[in-house]
Amino acid sequence: MPTPDTIHLPDIKDLLKPVQPHLVALNFYLNEEVNAFEPEVREFARYCLRHTGKQLRPTLVFYSGWQDAISAPNPQLVRVAAILELVHQATLVHDDILDGASIRHNSPTLNEEYNAHTAVLLGDILFSHALKLASDFPTVTVCRAVSQATRRVCAGEIGQTFQHRSPKVSLVDYYRIIDLKTAELFRVSCELGAEIAGYPADFVKAAAVFGRHLGIAYQIFDDLADITGKEATIGKTLGTDLQGGKFTLPILLLLEKLEVMQRQTLVEEMQSGRANTAKWANPIREYGIPALVKNAFFDEIAKAESALLPYREFPPFKQLMSLSSFIKYQTETIRV
Amino acid sequence: MPTPDTIHLPDIKDLLKPVQPHLVALNFYLNEEVNAFEPEVREFARYCLRHTGKQLRPTLVFYSGWQDAISAPNPQLVRVAAILELVHQATLVHDDILDGASIRHNSPTLNEEYNAHTAVLLGDILFSHALKLASDFPTVTVCRAVSQATRRVCAGEIGQTFQHRSPKVSLVDYYRIIDLKTAELFRVSCELGAEIAGYPADFVKAAAVFGRHLGIAYQIFDDLADITGKEATIGKTLGTDLQGGKFTLPILLLLEKLEVMQRQTLVEEMQSGRANTAKWANPIREYGIPALVKNAFFDEIAKAESALLPYREFPPFKQLMSLSSFIKYQTETIRV
Repeated sequence: MPTPDTIHLPDIKDLLKPVQPHLVALNFYLNEEVNAFEPEVREFARYCLRHTGKQLRPTLVFYSGWQDAISAPNPQLVRVAAILELVHQATLVHDDILDGASIRHNSPTLNEEYNAHTAVLLGDILFSHALKLASDFPTVTVCRAVSQATRRVCAGEIGQTFQHRSPKVSLVDYYRIIDLKTAELFRVSCELGAEIAGYPADFVKAAAVFGRHLGIAYQIFDDLADITGKEATIGKTLGTDLQGGKFTLPILLLLEKLEVMQRQTLVEEMQSGRANTAKWANPIREYGIPALVKNAFFDEIAKAESALLPYREFPPFKQLMSLSSFIKYQTETIRV
Repeated sequence: MPTPDTIHLPDIKDLLKPVQPHLVALNFYLNEEVNAFEPEVREFARYCLRHTGKQLRPTLVFYSGWQDAISAPNPQLVRVAAILELVHQATLVHDDILDGASIRHNSPTLNEEYNAHTAVLLGDILFSHALKLASDFPTVTVCRAVSQATRRVCAGEIGQTFQHRSPKVSLVDYYRIIDLKTAELFRVSCELGAEIAGYPADFVKAAAVFGRHLGIAYQIFDDLADITGKEATIGKTLGTDLQGGKFTLPILLLLEKLEVMQRQTLVEEMQSGRANTAKWANPIREYGIPALVKNAFFDEIAKAESALLPYREFPPFKQLMSLSSFIKYQTETIRV
């Protein structure tokens, strides 16, 4: 039986290679759009979009609408990808205000570099421009899907705000919130990619199910990384959930395992903002929390992948599977 | 020649009487929509929409799409009115965060009653739900108009933020900003009202011109009221522009009139946030600033009304003219 270190991992760069020309086309397109903004806001919009990040949502759009015969980026898919990226960036800009975050991608947030006024309004502008691009399609399909998804994402974030420091959060609550705040944009990216590329309705539905479960898995990975990951590997500040009183899956599973007294201590620490990841590292390891969370992660990956199994012959199949491998690969980098 | 007190003013209630059943239908519709929101956000959305305010934008929609033969509210116009009201409410929710405002319509703002997290996200939800309603029309016309208008409103507000305390603001800058931040939603309300009701393209354009100039006039009135109005008549805190370093039309005109030394004093006071309306009340009166601002107001009203003159036979003509009278009437209540 192979030890974890000998498990064969695919080369991460190869997995996302096919999407690169499409992402280049996307970033060229976004740049052109920003240049056509009102002069009052161009500078801020450029500042905000200057770091491209992982662009997972655009990648989902391109891969769900993949057509082997067509090598040049499909302008319709580029537009859908731009819409989803703008909505995602808008939520990040607003999140950074809410969190009082001063750094993202190793440079000052918009909030920090300019002010909260500009950040609130620029988020609004990115949202409304996304919907303007959606209205450039001949039908209302994209507008409807994107506006509804945006409302659901924000409802999820409000729900999360009110779960803050509340020990009454259940596993059902946790899954509902991440379904809204994270999985919704993954889901709609896949749905619209497949639909705009002209795939049949049953495949569009399957792609949406794939996206949704991949999104849930991705959030579970993110929550696990926050509590057990290494900052150098993950590339952002970790340990914020315990300290911030956010009852994520690893924390909920730990609470289930702890003895009554310890459970009470952890809840009290989280409610008062004193909980500290280092202190709880031992119980987390002893109770095997990372393995339990990884099980939950792989359950979602399995649901995502199995939705696509009837569509092996479709060109998006291979691409979407490679993205799912990419996310599994990231999870493997978490060692405890 | 009549003195100001003997000028015949139309009865303000009669002017807006015809729109009342339509506003009732609008508020019923908005209520139903909010009830269908995610449970996480219903309470906040209700809180936010509980005071209806003047609903000028919905009134513009109903009056621009007026049809004498049809007395029951047109459901299409109700939906457009709801969209514009939601966008307007979203901008108010976000403005209240930016201004740190704690009171609107005599009760705590969302920001104050809950927290800034909720206010940012709820504004986003109202925006995105407006666009979702826009996508319920069979074509992308409403989505496109509303998303573009929203982007322009926010660009205007960002522009205004960066004019803050800047004595380099010119009259051209002032008009550009109010055209974006206020006139744009008035314009698009009239345009969509006329279009959805099926009026011909030339009338739709004329209605849009009417709305735009009415919006500019309305902002000029608002800026005059801030500096010379009585709080009891206007119904909100006044005198905030001078103190807040906002170079509005009355202030720009006063600066043009002042001697060099006085001008420098006012600019310095505004830049440091020490300017006080009571101190400048005399120069404002002596230089006849209110009369000059009223001239600018009536110039815009004249542009608005003359756009409609070729359409005297159209049912919206009488209604829109009565709304313009309503706004003129409000201006007459400002005495200095």
